[in-house]
Amino acid sequence: MSQDAFSEMERAAIYRVIAERRDVRDHFTAEPVGDDVLLRVLGAAHKAPSVGLSQPWRFLVIRKSETRAAVHALFESASAEAAQTYAGERAERYRALRLAGILDAPVNLCVLSDDDPIRGAGLGRRTMPETARYSTVCAIQNLWLAARAEGLGVGWVSIVDPAALRRTLKVPPQLALVAYLCVGFTRGFATEPDLERAHWDVRVPLADVIAYERFAD
Amino acid sequence: MSQDAFSEMERAAIYRVIAERRDVRDHFTAEPVGDDVLLRVLGAAHKAPSVGLSQPWRFLVIRKSETRAAVHALFESASAEAAQTYAGERAERYRALRLAGILDAPVNLCVLSDDDPIRGAGLGRRTMPETARYSTVCAIQNLWLAARAEGLGVGWVSIVDPAALRRTLKVPPQLALVAYLCVGFTRGFATEPDLERAHWDVRVPLADVIAYERFAD
Repeated sequence: MSQDAFSEMERAAIYRVIAERRDVRDHFTAEPVGDDVLLRVLGAAHKAPSVGLSQPWRFLVIRKSETRAAVHALFESASAEAAQTYAGERAERYRALRLAGILDAPVNLCVLSDDDPIRGAGLGRRTMPETARYSTVCAIQNLWLAARAEGLGVGWVSIVDPAALRRTLKVPPQLALVAYLCVGFTRGFATEPDLERAHWDVRVPLADVIAYERFAD
Repeated sequence: MSQDAFSEMERAAIYRVIAERRDVRDHFTAEPVGDDVLLRVLGAAHKAPSVGLSQPWRFLVIRKSETRAAVHALFESASAEAAQTYAGERAERYRALRLAGILDAPVNLCVLSDDDPIRGAGLGRRTMPETARYSTVCAIQNLWLAARAEGLGVGWVSIVDPAALRRTLKVPPQLALVAYLCVGFTRGFATEPDLERAHWDVRVPLADVIAYERFAD
């Protein structure tokens, strides 16, 4: 039943892809994303852990420019509304951000999740039903890492009205909308996150997010 | 700004760890998990994408056996209740499952998420606020893959009353409880998921979870 240990070189490759993955919103190329590479990264997603082995994820592959244009219009509208919520220097920084590559990225992926999957027979979802959606998010992170290794940029667009997006893509009611991703080959991967280079925020040290044993009274 | 492409060998290592990651609930060894390796896998988690660069994740590292015993009691109680919901062959299979390694795994991790992080200035959370928690789940998947590469098994326990777990760990109200993980070196990683070997469910083909362009009317 046992699998082999990973070599030092394999481990280094795994830490490297985790460190060099980026949220890509710009510099997509027009190079087509073939079915072969697309199915490899979707296959990586499909190997994610899932509560009760329920595999609740669904992937809608969008390539048509008319579909992407419809989604882009939703993004533009939501982004204009969001811009109104910032003032002063923050508003200027917001306007300078490049936030989505919906039209440039040749493949868009809408990631959905069955909130009440038949598979898995409910195991683990009685006490924490949200773990079905969390399984789907684990699948997204697998896809993101595999894509980086393939030279494919991935950007997660959350500036969009989810109800409007559901209508545009005719998402059936039993599927929750989890993510909208832009996927394509890119002219390069930045060494730092875009939002850090744009002085939107900074990454905090690891020690700031770790606590021990129990929280204090 | 650009990073190098990944070599064929690096890509193979990344796909390998994605394929060979397992949800580990048994066969943990007593070998201590040192701070060095623990900080490496937490560092991998901390490199996850986050909405608006908000980094909403928090990791509570639990080692004391008294804390783990208290959590284990919560698991036992929730699992006994869950067992009542199955009948016949399914109930027998449920009772045969090994569902948590809370006491055996020398490290337990409670993963929490700030639902309204100061960092990120709200970017991307206006339309889809749930993306803060999803960022934290991406961090968990990073940790899970890095752990597999280090020979560390990880098991996600969701059969526990979240309110009771919060009280036991004194989780502050502003942090959402996302996951409870058991982490430890293991005697081996199974080639198939435990739930598949136990005939709880089967993995479906990739084609079953892919759709194209828009859903039908």
